[in-house]
Amino acid sequence: MGNVINYNSWEDKAPFGALSLNQDMRISVRVSDDYEISNISWVIMKENVEIVKTSLIRENKKYYQGEFNGFNEVGVYFYYFEVDVELDGVVQTKYYGKNMENGESCEYLYEDLNKYQITVYKDYEVPKWYKEGILYHIFVDRFNNGNRTKKVSNPKKNSFIYANWDDDPMYIKDNEGNIVRWDFYGGNLKGIIDKLGYLKKLGVSIIYLSPIFEASSNHKYDTGDYKKIDAMFGDEEIFRELLDKASKKGIHIILDGVFSHTGSDSIYFNKYNRYSDLGAYQSEESKYNSWYKFNNYPEDYDCWWGVKSLPNVNELDPTYIDYIIKNDDSVLKKWTTMGVKGWRLDVADELPEQFIKEFKKELKDLSDDNILIGEVWEDASNKISYNQRREYLLGEQLDSVMGYPFRTNIVSFLKNDIKSIDLLNRFMQIKENYPSEAFKSNLNLIGSHDVKRIKTELDEDKELVKLAVGIQMTFEGIPYIYYGDEAGICGNTDPDNRRTYPWKKEDEDMIEYYRNLTTIRKKYKALIYGETSFIDTKNADVFAFIRKTEEEKLLIVVNRSENENDIKLHLDDNTIEEIDIESNLKKYIEDIFKDDKNFEINIKAKTLKVFNLKNLIG
Amino acid sequence: MGNVINYNSWEDKAPFGALSLNQDMRISVRVSDDYEISNISWVIMKENVEIVKTSLIRENKKYYQGEFNGFNEVGVYFYYFEVDVELDGVVQTKYYGKNMENGESCEYLYEDLNKYQITVYKDYEVPKWYKEGILYHIFVDRFNNGNRTKKVSNPKKNSFIYANWDDDPMYIKDNEGNIVRWDFYGGNLKGIIDKLGYLKKLGVSIIYLSPIFEASSNHKYDTGDYKKIDAMFGDEEIFRELLDKASKKGIHIILDGVFSHTGSDSIYFNKYNRYSDLGAYQSEESKYNSWYKFNNYPEDYDCWWGVKSLPNVNELDPTYIDYIIKNDDSVLKKWTTMGVKGWRLDVADELPEQFIKEFKKELKDLSDDNILIGEVWEDASNKISYNQRREYLLGEQLDSVMGYPFRTNIVSFLKNDIKSIDLLNRFMQIKENYPSEAFKSNLNLIGSHDVKRIKTELDEDKELVKLAVGIQMTFEGIPYIYYGDEAGICGNTDPDNRRTYPWKKEDEDMIEYYRNLTTIRKKYKALIYGETSFIDTKNADVFAFIRKTEEEKLLIVVNRSENENDIKLHLDDNTIEEIDIESNLKKYIEDIFKDDKNFEINIKAKTLKVFNLKNLIG
Repeated sequence: MGNVINYNSWEDKAPFGALSLNQDMRISVRVSDDYEISNISWVIMKENVEIVKTSLIRENKKYYQGEFNGFNEVGVYFYYFEVDVELDGVVQTKYYGKNMENGESCEYLYEDLNKYQITVYKDYEVPKWYKEGILYHIFVDRFNNGNRTKKVSNPKKNSFIYANWDDDPMYIKDNEGNIVRWDFYGGNLKGIIDKLGYLKKLGVSIIYLSPIFEASSNHKYDTGDYKKIDAMFGDEEIFRELLDKASKKGIHIILDGVFSHTGSDSIYFNKYNRYSDLGAYQSEESKYNSWYKFNNYPEDYDCWWGVKSLPNVNELDPTYIDYIIKNDDSVLKKWTTMGVKGWRLDVADELPEQFIKEFKKELKDLSDDNILIGEVWEDASNKISYNQRREYLLGEQLDSVMGYPFRTNIVSFLKNDIKSIDLLNRFMQIKENYPSEAFKSNLNLIGSHDVKRIKTELDEDKELVKLAVGIQMTFEGIPYIYYGDEAGICGNTDPDNRRTYPWKKEDEDMIEYYRNLTTIRKKYKALIYGETSFIDTKNADVFAFIRKTEEEKLLIVVNRSENENDIKLHLDDNTIEEIDIESNLKKYIEDIFKDDKNFEINIKAKTLKVFNLKNLIG
Repeated sequence: MGNVINYNSWEDKAPFGALSLNQDMRISVRVSDDYEISNISWVIMKENVEIVKTSLIRENKKYYQGEFNGFNEVGVYFYYFEVDVELDGVVQTKYYGKNMENGESCEYLYEDLNKYQITVYKDYEVPKWYKEGILYHIFVDRFNNGNRTKKVSNPKKNSFIYANWDDDPMYIKDNEGNIVRWDFYGGNLKGIIDKLGYLKKLGVSIIYLSPIFEASSNHKYDTGDYKKIDAMFGDEEIFRELLDKASKKGIHIILDGVFSHTGSDSIYFNKYNRYSDLGAYQSEESKYNSWYKFNNYPEDYDCWWGVKSLPNVNELDPTYIDYIIKNDDSVLKKWTTMGVKGWRLDVADELPEQFIKEFKKELKDLSDDNILIGEVWEDASNKISYNQRREYLLGEQLDSVMGYPFRTNIVSFLKNDIKSIDLLNRFMQIKENYPSEAFKSNLNLIGSHDVKRIKTELDEDKELVKLAVGIQMTFEGIPYIYYGDEAGICGNTDPDNRRTYPWKKEDEDMIEYYRNLTTIRKKYKALIYGETSFIDTKNADVFAFIRKTEEEKLLIVVNRSENENDIKLHLDDNTIEEIDIESNLKKYIEDIFKDDKNFEINIKAKTLKVFNLKNLIG
């Protein structure tokens, strides 16, 4: 006997995925002949409040259907089914929700119900330059020193300079684990300007800079002055030059905005009396006093993860909002009007939604073409932070988030922790939950300053790294390159993942691979705008998906295994052209064998192939 | 009733102090009328073996005398007195030895006897240039960077450079206290060459360099290659230039010889495979294997104070002695024939005497004008190390030792821990125990890389620092300036005492003071060659001594107190001229008042005065 009902939100719901405000939704539930069903109730909730409970309509022997057009508020909705079925002569109520693994339905006890999610958002459009972009993340101190002599400019008092550019990074801590001295390599903005040609050639169109405002540390998440470029990195004149020269090469600059806390060594807090302003730590009369939360003035103050050098701010304090967002010379306006095209909000989960909304509104008022990104580590459609559901992707907050789940999924697959079908399911889950614009704008990262270098994560297996990069460059969403990954560098977690870019010691083969892939991505619009269909390859080691627009249809196949794999794909009889990503040359391939209506494709060990399904175009 | 006998080795023994081989010695013991003495035995021991026991001869009612001419072996001898005296009608034997505080005799129980010491040495002469010298100790990494751009030459892999020349030094350690990364400022030999003019003007005639051979650390006591200048410091060509240019200015160079251990990161041990030679750690077949002591090969090896980066050597291993001392291209010969005028043996207490003797012999064979110094922290005449009495100063080993007791004594006095009479006694003790050449060659240091900076030791009281410097510059023995002390820098213990020389931020007043004092020292030969007579000023705060030759007689008076002090000195009626050390001008002073045969001298608070006792000359 089969299941009482069968429903798969990935197939039986129209339209697929998240809905825009007031969009109708239809579902179709298949029932089994084997059971006597008297009623199927469809229960829709907004968060944990039931907003409708309606009986599905029996269309025919096999199907029940339902339609709902009441999504008139943005938010995260859920639904499940109550099925009244006669068993052993008694009518029982059974509860069906979402399978944990995929879109299929599954019976639960009422109290354990895993409901289906529907994300309802206010329609928004992410700027085209961003969605079409390839992003390069630069940790400024570690990328390139543009000084002719390689001397370090304006070094900070009581700090260390690494003796050699290729020395191993480390933290200098005392026995209690406090950082006692900051360490620098001397990368700076001038160094980025010098490498714009390199980045352009790599295919980069967006540079995301780690924080560049004055701060004590090398990472500069401990802001000292939001309105000043750190003197080790350069000055406003050099920054303008960077914006200008990047712009001429079609490269946009995005800044890291750190607004959940400041540094303790700052104009605002001024714990070490290094600034002339009267800081909040120095006096309760400070004009910045209302920015901070003192439990016991001045030593006991609220700070980020208990780190005393990072006092938290009251982001909603009106003077703070004015200073950061609203004033004519606000931080946001100063740098955005200078030419910055977007901001990445550090620790978005720590920021009140109102702050993000105000920031977004002011940013978009300056220009619709500006972009707002958030640092969110999980599925950003349903993230709960401090007991509150976050509405990052519902239209009034973020354009895009850091795609850590993308990395986790890719790594799990390439390390044989999950099968290709699991990877498919995990990607589908995000795709279903995210608004289409959000999914297309998702930052598909495989590395950042906060995780292991991808090469180290994959045990320095260069072939696997290439598979990760290949998926990233052909996937829906924005490829995100962490500086130096393309040059083949390794690195464990922080600080090892912040090694310097290995100028003159690059893995040229890897750079070439990146260049070929970015070239292909730019050539085939389907890789940017194409809808994604994942393919169940029936082979745990082989992951495949199709990207298609009305003009193009591309097939991407990845074999993670040490062995060659033959897989059969149900594709129509087409001339299939392989895009040779290693040499960027095209050639017709011979190892696709026609077998009835199936193609048998032979994929070599640890290989990613991109096929152009020519005859399907149009 | 007085003491049974009275004897003071500082007055009643001829000649005073240590004796050269086969020199006769006479003593005179005063007895009290109040007792019936039947015999006084004079017991002389070599170490703990009695070599003679003879009765003193009664010269008259008051004196017993004795003479001994059996000092035909160098060594440390001791003596005491057995006095047979009739008390209450019974003859009792009483034992007299040396008072703990001064040269007076004192009754002891036999088992508690504190004997008088006689140092018997083989006559030797310390080169004139050395005895007349003023030494300047340079910790090379911290003195001056001679590179035009101030870039650091040839920085070591995985090391740190201080961001600023005036940053605070620190050790970079892990939780277990191991040094994990070395830190450098970038001082080098070229930097010393550039400052030879400055040193000359300061009055310096000897430069003692901290180790300069290749090594991982900043201090370079962990030798990597004894035959190579560390590349951060320079190379052989630059070193030759330093020797040459210094020599032209009449400045001699002394090197730090570190022969009790090598670095683990060395040609010889090669723990980290950084050298091409097969090191002792790498293979038991290494030609250096016999240099080291492995308890359990290769991880468990004997090392200096348990520091694993400093494996101890078997200094007496013939191949080691050949390599360091005897081979035609030995370490000693290579650098000495290049022009180095002397060596300071690091941790002399750890070196076998035979090693020191061989070193001295070979060094003097190259030229009698060469000098050998030892790092000894205590009274070097009777130091026991590893249960063995050390014969450093007996003629076949050291010319000179580091005068840490000098520093301890001066500091104790200036900090009011002891009275002027105690200071007198402590100096007399050393003077009595040391061969005259050794005392004249003693390195009178008030700072080094192993103790607090004198300014910090004296609680940053600059006036007291000047007193210390004044005593140092007028005392018997060689003034030893630790780089930067003359520029007024502070520093707690290591690493704080290794701050950089404060170029352009010097205390010019202090430098001027040093210059005046070195000028005076050079002008008045009595300050170099004069015998020293300490004066009991009867005032705890005022320390005074006379230095005199046949041509000159100088009186030095030091008042440590916050108050002015008047002291009376028994001096003949002379024209007393004060040497104005602050301005280096002479003037007749008015504040010495004649009072019968005494002079009353008024000394201002925290002042050192030098008087030229003109009429006593000749």
